[in-house]
Amino acid sequence: MADTVKVIFQPSGRRGEVEKGINLIEASRRLGVDIEALCGEKKVCGKCKVRIEQGVFPKYGITSSLDHVSDWQKEEGKFISEAERAQGYRLACAAKLTGDVLVFVPEESRAGKQVVSKAARDIPIEWNPAVKLYTVSMKPPSFEDPLGDFERTARALEEQHGLKDLDIDWLILQRLPGALRQGDWTVTVAVWNDREIIKVWPGEVKDYYGFGIDVGTTTVAAYFCNMRTMEVIDTVSMMNPQCKYGEDVMARITYHMQTPGGLERMSDDIIAGLNQLIAQACEATWPPKRKKRDAEGNVVTDENGKPVMEEAPEEGKTYLRLTPEDILDVTIGCNTAMHHILLKLDPQYVGLAPFPPVVHRSLDIKARDLGLKINPGSYVFILPNEAGFVGADNVCVLIAEEPYKSDKLQLIIDIGTNGELVLGNKDKMISSSCATGPALEGAQLTFGMRAAPGAIERIKIDPETHEVDYKVIGRDAWKNYSKPEEMQTKGICGSGILDVLAELYRAGVILKSGRFSPKQKSNRFRKNPDNPRQKEFVIAWAEETSIGKDIVITQKDIRQIQLAKGALYTGCKLMMRRMGVDKVDSIKIAGAFGTHVDRTKALIMGLFPDCDLEKVVSVGNAAGDGARIALLNRDKRTEANWVARNVEYIELTVEPDFEKEFMAAMQIPHMTDDFPHLRGIVPDEILDQK
Amino acid sequence: MADTVKVIFQPSGRRGEVEKGINLIEASRRLGVDIEALCGEKKVCGKCKVRIEQGVFPKYGITSSLDHVSDWQKEEGKFISEAERAQGYRLACAAKLTGDVLVFVPEESRAGKQVVSKAARDIPIEWNPAVKLYTVSMKPPSFEDPLGDFERTARALEEQHGLKDLDIDWLILQRLPGALRQGDWTVTVAVWNDREIIKVWPGEVKDYYGFGIDVGTTTVAAYFCNMRTMEVIDTVSMMNPQCKYGEDVMARITYHMQTPGGLERMSDDIIAGLNQLIAQACEATWPPKRKKRDAEGNVVTDENGKPVMEEAPEEGKTYLRLTPEDILDVTIGCNTAMHHILLKLDPQYVGLAPFPPVVHRSLDIKARDLGLKINPGSYVFILPNEAGFVGADNVCVLIAEEPYKSDKLQLIIDIGTNGELVLGNKDKMISSSCATGPALEGAQLTFGMRAAPGAIERIKIDPETHEVDYKVIGRDAWKNYSKPEEMQTKGICGSGILDVLAELYRAGVILKSGRFSPKQKSNRFRKNPDNPRQKEFVIAWAEETSIGKDIVITQKDIRQIQLAKGALYTGCKLMMRRMGVDKVDSIKIAGAFGTHVDRTKALIMGLFPDCDLEKVVSVGNAAGDGARIALLNRDKRTEANWVARNVEYIELTVEPDFEKEFMAAMQIPHMTDDFPHLRGIVPDEILDQK
Repeated sequence: MADTVKVIFQPSGRRGEVEKGINLIEASRRLGVDIEALCGEKKVCGKCKVRIEQGVFPKYGITSSLDHVSDWQKEEGKFISEAERAQGYRLACAAKLTGDVLVFVPEESRAGKQVVSKAARDIPIEWNPAVKLYTVSMKPPSFEDPLGDFERTARALEEQHGLKDLDIDWLILQRLPGALRQGDWTVTVAVWNDREIIKVWPGEVKDYYGFGIDVGTTTVAAYFCNMRTMEVIDTVSMMNPQCKYGEDVMARITYHMQTPGGLERMSDDIIAGLNQLIAQACEATWPPKRKKRDAEGNVVTDENGKPVMEEAPEEGKTYLRLTPEDILDVTIGCNTAMHHILLKLDPQYVGLAPFPPVVHRSLDIKARDLGLKINPGSYVFILPNEAGFVGADNVCVLIAEEPYKSDKLQLIIDIGTNGELVLGNKDKMISSSCATGPALEGAQLTFGMRAAPGAIERIKIDPETHEVDYKVIGRDAWKNYSKPEEMQTKGICGSGILDVLAELYRAGVILKSGRFSPKQKSNRFRKNPDNPRQKEFVIAWAEETSIGKDIVITQKDIRQIQLAKGALYTGCKLMMRRMGVDKVDSIKIAGAFGTHVDRTKALIMGLFPDCDLEKVVSVGNAAGDGARIALLNRDKRTEANWVARNVEYIELTVEPDFEKEFMAAMQIPHMTDDFPHLRGIVPDEILDQK
Repeated sequence: MADTVKVIFQPSGRRGEVEKGINLIEASRRLGVDIEALCGEKKVCGKCKVRIEQGVFPKYGITSSLDHVSDWQKEEGKFISEAERAQGYRLACAAKLTGDVLVFVPEESRAGKQVVSKAARDIPIEWNPAVKLYTVSMKPPSFEDPLGDFERTARALEEQHGLKDLDIDWLILQRLPGALRQGDWTVTVAVWNDREIIKVWPGEVKDYYGFGIDVGTTTVAAYFCNMRTMEVIDTVSMMNPQCKYGEDVMARITYHMQTPGGLERMSDDIIAGLNQLIAQACEATWPPKRKKRDAEGNVVTDENGKPVMEEAPEEGKTYLRLTPEDILDVTIGCNTAMHHILLKLDPQYVGLAPFPPVVHRSLDIKARDLGLKINPGSYVFILPNEAGFVGADNVCVLIAEEPYKSDKLQLIIDIGTNGELVLGNKDKMISSSCATGPALEGAQLTFGMRAAPGAIERIKIDPETHEVDYKVIGRDAWKNYSKPEEMQTKGICGSGILDVLAELYRAGVILKSGRFSPKQKSNRFRKNPDNPRQKEFVIAWAEETSIGKDIVITQKDIRQIQLAKGALYTGCKLMMRRMGVDKVDSIKIAGAFGTHVDRTKALIMGLFPDCDLEKVVSVGNAAGDGARIALLNRDKRTEANWVARNVEYIELTVEPDFEKEFMAAMQIPHMTDDFPHLRGIVPDEILDQK
């Protein structure tokens, strides 16, 4: 390729060189990024809006500029406002590459959206939310009893519900006189922690709503709950809009330290994202709209010729018709760095030994102070942090799983972009974090990708022939039961990566050390055509893919996975040593990773210590569950603060023998440790190689 | 006057007809309003900025418009921005009258500023403010002790000062990591009510500052205090900027009810006024500035030719150099209507029977929520209301005077634009309010004016000749010892009005009924030349005035005063009846009125029941004192809430015989009640007339 340019797509991080002159839609296809293009690149649907980021990006060695794409076309003006244009927005089908660019693909322009498995689990929660509703009726004031509106309401709340010494938010006090008179001296109030009135309605109201939100480094998941019935109305998620500032925690801390105003920008972006998420979830409680038509079926237009819209409710369906003002409580759990960035607390010390956070304890922040556009009198509950690298997300896992109430010794592993570990039972709890990096999520590998359609998620390798069969997300049939061109394979997702490695190891393609075996049995093993020093194994031939290239796994990819799994295993092992135990009773895997990973393959890879596979369970998005639990039960908030201060944090990197343990743990599954539960799953000769 | 226009000046309310073609400065002089005109109307000083209010004003029977003054002159553009011009601003020296106008004179354009006597009294206050400072030192975090910044600080505060379970304002938490490291792990924190950290500084800090503010209907007075030493640094005051929406409480409530957004506008105006007042008081703690000069004495200029300014501190003087961010606490007392308008609480029900306020209890509102630009973590303490017409200003008087701790029966009278009465001792306290109107402050009388230079404040009338001697504010010599043209008399101020009436009565010019006596002894008594049915008495001949007209008191003026004093006396009497007493042990008169009024004249007029004059004392601006006490002693805040709920409010107008009592109280001093303490002060034949 003589005349190429570099293109990086965010937030996916997919990058590569493509030839000049192609448009951004085409470039996105070549690099495995899916941008919506409903109209077939005719510039008429406006779905492929992207933003060209402008500036110098040393990490990628490029300067990105609006001048590096072809000129603005007037058709784009129909979809992109002047303000957006100034920010760098273009239609991906209209903008052709003339130089290096960093392209941000907004959530709404992404096709094949990530399959985020963050559905709410059915967990038992005792109803005792921090926000409760009370309806009271009272007599109007008279000369005999001219008591003021607030004291009159407070007196009724004390007489009828036993609530004493209530405060009221000033903004809600402003609405009280109107509500009392509109409701003919019957009102419903929302009371926060038996302490403060945060909303008032005329008359009687029963249902009210809240969000439990898990703000991850990469993904934000939110549970939209009816707070009276505890029913989950909807589960919504989005990419963390901060991804554009860096893929991992350290990159964002660095961005803050190097960019004046960077902290505020990142905080504002996540707040804006949360507002959008909440607004969209509320919007979904309204009937869909359609163009109004007259008796003859013609579209009715207004005086400006624009179609008049009308609601088109589905028959028999009831709609809640909620707005963000109906949201009375929000709980947020995040890792410590995301917590600090969200709250504009300087995160630099979290990244420097001895990693002290700015604050551990939970915080109650007025939604209006935080900029969250819900009921303005409401508080947002921010879950507490354990330590600099074990944050509120881990506390959420703990209050959801409650290992501190159990006799059994539990090991809880939460693998996101960072790995967080808790080991303990009712006697003692310790936690630590390990830098697994994003490899286990499929990032930074040659053909790694997110869990989106076309990603390889399951694989089998025949030990005799080294032939490969696999399955991709979005297609039920395995490759061996499909025509090659039906597969449209694009890459390998996080859970698929472990499958690939485990199968390569079990089939003898790679050795315990992670190196390719000298005894190869197929033409899939080869030297990279462009770089003969790099060895690789072909997982999918070009004809099976939608990217027109062989999908391979390289020696370097294998090393990345080994580093990640070694870090995780070392963490588990050092914690067990601290606890003085050599095995655990059960292992719980939290996070989306836990939902998708094959436990057997994870044990083969040696991600965690040997354990009866029946005692290895996935607990789904336990972080999100914890946020939901804190939303619906205020005692769990107290418990969260207790647990955050009663888990002993262990900094692994300063433990004795850390380096030595880490080297041994890089082996598949481990250099010396026994894995009795792998006997029969992995051939003995493979398991016993030295 | 063939061709005249009507002009009303606000906030003074001075009004009248003047001939077309004169400029606004000239009109203001004729109507007794002083506008700054330093340059002698040459349009070069810009001091005489006024605003032409636009709209229909039924109260005054005029339509005011920018078209009713002469065209804009380009010289005005030097002092008036485009935005101000759009709001109706003009230079009073440039704008000539062509039609009726309502003119608002901003505070800064007023000459002869009102003599507001609101100096701080020397009252004993026990130091126990709601906001206190604590300095703590701690060890930096280590691997052995990686506790987070907030918990580390809280631990030190508990160990070193016994403070437990502290919260921290989120915005202050943002500043904590920086302060700890900048102060090398020594910081000073400001703690509110032993509960919440509201400010943090690196290192040690000792002095801190606050404001106790009395927001009156007409005047705002603020005490600027050093909260460590309790010293009053400065006493500052201004007109309530809401005066332009109406002179009294009812007018402002009406403005709110008739004007969408009116409540928010009035609230925003008083908040902006308070911000300006605080900023100016802080500005006064800096050295004055002067133009910098070089060795030869030439003014040094910058690259744009503008003079460079330098500080010119007075020798030996130390400057505090404070900014509004240094203000850590503010307390505000107001009457109920001002309270509601300040806080954007619907005040309409305060004006409707049975007059319930929106809230009685005190409120702690974050300064940033209220829009007060002080330390953003601070709370503003709003004192509690007793009832719809007895507000926090009265509570301030009570916590300053503490009648509830006394055996003696005290009657406390606070005369502002509204009259508020409290009667009681340690056994029982009752309160009421009466509509005195502004007449006792000199407003709405033919020649009434504020207490400004040129206002008659003392008067003597010879019973034999009915000749008049008087004294004006700003001139020590009485009229009889001055040349007529030296007096420059302009009108009669509030305290002067009572003198005038009391002397007219004592000298026999008017009868007990308030009507002019048929036995007149001078040419000062006459029929009004323009309206022969109106009788009047000349106090000052035109030659003694700066307005070129005889200053008279009319029968209508006398009636206004009688109505006001009758309302006040009726209130006192009905309260005494409720208490079952026929005399009180002492009378305390609060407010600026109390400071200026001659107790003897007030008793002659029958403003309050008979009492030993030695037991009648002025307690100055007790409302402001109460706000200052609440600033410096938090227990007095609790006491304020207690007293607000333990004073029984009596609605006078629904008391039996109210009408009859009111009629009797219109007499001077009263139709039937005895005033033994007036014997020897007023001749018996006058006192005993029927």
